[in-house]
Amino acid sequence: MRKIKLSGYGLSLPKNTVTFNGQTRYRISGEENQLSLAVAACKKALASVNKKITDIDCIVSASAVGIQPIPCTASLIHEQIAKGTDIPALDINTTCTSFITALDTMSYLLDAGRYKNILIVSSEVGSLALNPKQKESYELFSDGAVAFIISKTEEEVGVLCALQKTWSEGAHATEIRGGLSSYLPENYSENTKEEYMFDMSGKKVLSLSIKKLPEMLNEFLEKNNLKIEDIDMIIPHQASPAMPLIMSKLGIAEEKYINIVSEYGNMVSASVPSTLYFALKENKIKRGDKILLIGTAAGLTTNMLLIKL
Amino acid sequence: MRKIKLSGYGLSLPKNTVTFNGQTRYRISGEENQLSLAVAACKKALASVNKKITDIDCIVSASAVGIQPIPCTASLIHEQIAKGTDIPALDINTTCTSFITALDTMSYLLDAGRYKNILIVSSEVGSLALNPKQKESYELFSDGAVAFIISKTEEEVGVLCALQKTWSEGAHATEIRGGLSSYLPENYSENTKEEYMFDMSGKKVLSLSIKKLPEMLNEFLEKNNLKIEDIDMIIPHQASPAMPLIMSKLGIAEEKYINIVSEYGNMVSASVPSTLYFALKENKIKRGDKILLIGTAAGLTTNMLLIKL
Repeated sequence: MRKIKLSGYGLSLPKNTVTFNGQTRYRISGEENQLSLAVAACKKALASVNKKITDIDCIVSASAVGIQPIPCTASLIHEQIAKGTDIPALDINTTCTSFITALDTMSYLLDAGRYKNILIVSSEVGSLALNPKQKESYELFSDGAVAFIISKTEEEVGVLCALQKTWSEGAHATEIRGGLSSYLPENYSENTKEEYMFDMSGKKVLSLSIKKLPEMLNEFLEKNNLKIEDIDMIIPHQASPAMPLIMSKLGIAEEKYINIVSEYGNMVSASVPSTLYFALKENKIKRGDKILLIGTAAGLTTNMLLIKL
Repeated sequence: MRKIKLSGYGLSLPKNTVTFNGQTRYRISGEENQLSLAVAACKKALASVNKKITDIDCIVSASAVGIQPIPCTASLIHEQIAKGTDIPALDINTTCTSFITALDTMSYLLDAGRYKNILIVSSEVGSLALNPKQKESYELFSDGAVAFIISKTEEEVGVLCALQKTWSEGAHATEIRGGLSSYLPENYSENTKEEYMFDMSGKKVLSLSIKKLPEMLNEFLEKNNLKIEDIDMIIPHQASPAMPLIMSKLGIAEEKYINIVSEYGNMVSASVPSTLYFALKENKIKRGDKILLIGTAAGLTTNMLLIKL
C-alpha cells in the first residue's frame, strides 16, 4: 500500500447551467474560464483543511485540455496561487482519467518521501469546443474544476493497487484534432472549424469499452486477490448516460456505484474527482472504506485505482 | 538511489537543415511531422537494444506541445507503435524539461516495481510556431524527437537525486498563448496570429535564471552532500547561445558540460535527451559516471537530476 490520504478537497462549478431533457449541465459564462475555475477549486481545497499554499510541495494539473500550449497548465495556476514560491508544477495527462493517473503516479512520490503534500487539480471548459451538430456530446458535457490535496501519512490508508491500459484502436473515437501541431490554428476557417471541435463516436467508445472492461476488471481483481465484495463503493467517470449498461456488463449492482450524469454531466478530467468530492461531502463514503476509482478516457485508456480512505 | 538504467535510445531529426550565422537548425519539411519524428525515435530506441514494443510496460510522451488537444500525445504514438497491445500511455509536461520530469517521476514507479521497462519520448516541431519577427527564437529552435528506454535494474546505478522548482514570475516569459482554452483557434486572424506563435523574452528568462539558478544548485548539492567535483559531466538543456554565461555564473568549467547549441539549436523538450544521446553515442560519458541533467523551462521551471550510469 502506498500510504497517502486525501487531506483536502474543493470544487468549483460555473454559475450558469443549461438543461437538456431534464439533465443539468454547467457551462462557463462571462468572466469565468478554465484558469478561474482551477484557481477557485485550489483555494477551496486549501481552505478545507486550513492549509496555506506554502504547505504544498508540488502542484499537478491533471486536465485533458490545457489553458495554453506553453507553458504547462500547472505553471499558470501556480502564478495565481503560488507566485513568489518555488513549488514545482507539472502536468499529467491521460484525458478523462488524468486525475486517476496523477493520483496513481504521484502516490509513489509521496510514499517514497519525495513530497509530503501534493495539490492535484483537474479543470475543464469543454463547452468551448462542443459541436452543435453532435447532439450526444453537445448535451453531455459540463465545465468545472476540482482540486484534491493528497498527503503522506503513517496511517494504514492509501492506494492499494492501480492498473492502467491503453488500447489505441480507440485513439480516434474521441478527439479534438485541431489547435496544436498536427492541425494548426492558422488552418481555422468556416470549412475546417469542426476539426477544432470535440468529435466523439459514443458508439465506438461504448463498444470498445464493453469489449475490454470486463476482462480488465477481472485481471485487476485477480492480480490483487480481490472480490467485488471487498470494494465498498465505486466512483466512476461520469462518461455518459450509458453508465448503467457498462456497470451491468461488469456485474456491479446499482447501489455499489455513483451515477450523477443527470445532475452534472461529463466534466472530462474533472468528472472522477467531482464524483469523489460529492461522495465525501454527502457521506456516501467514509474513513476506512475501500473505494474503486474507475474511468475510460480518450486514447482509449482505462484506469482503475483502489484506495482505502 | 532509484535503481534504473538507460537501456536504449533513439534520435530522429528532420532531413532538412537551415543555417543562421553558421549555426545549424533542423526543420521539418514534406511529410515529416511531430508524430513521424516521435515514432521514428521510438523505433530506433527499441532497435538499439533489440527490444520489441511488447517488452515495454508504459509509454510516456514528455513533450512541451502536443500533437492534438485530445487524446494525449502518448496515445497517438501508441497507435503507431503499439496498436493491438494494452500498454498504458500518458503525457508528462513541464515544457522544455519534460524529459527530466518524466525520468524523475517514472523512476519511482520502476524502483517500486510497478513497471520494468518504460519508453519515454520527447518530440517537438517548434518551427511550425515561430514568429519571424522574433529573430532570437526564430533562429534558435530545431525540430526533433528522442526516445529513451529506462529499465529497472539490480545494478548499483540509477537516479541519485532530483529537484524541481517553478517560479511563476516567469510564467509569461516564454509562451504560446493561442490554440487551447484561453485563446481559441476560432479567434485566429491576420491581426491575432502572433498570439498563436512562440513568444519568448530571452532577456527575462536569462535574468530570472541568473538570479535563481546558483542558489538552487547550491541547495541541490548541499541537500545531497555533493560537490561539483562529484559530477562527471553536465548535460544541460540547449536553451540558448547564452549557456556559457549561465554556466560561468554556476561556477562550472567549460570541459564539464556539453554545449551543442551551434550544431543543433534548442529542440525544446527533445533538447536534454538529444544532448544525452550524443554524449552516449560519442562516448563522452560512460558506465559508472555521475551525470547531471539540468534545464530551465517555460513556467519558469528548473529541473536538476543526478543519474549514475
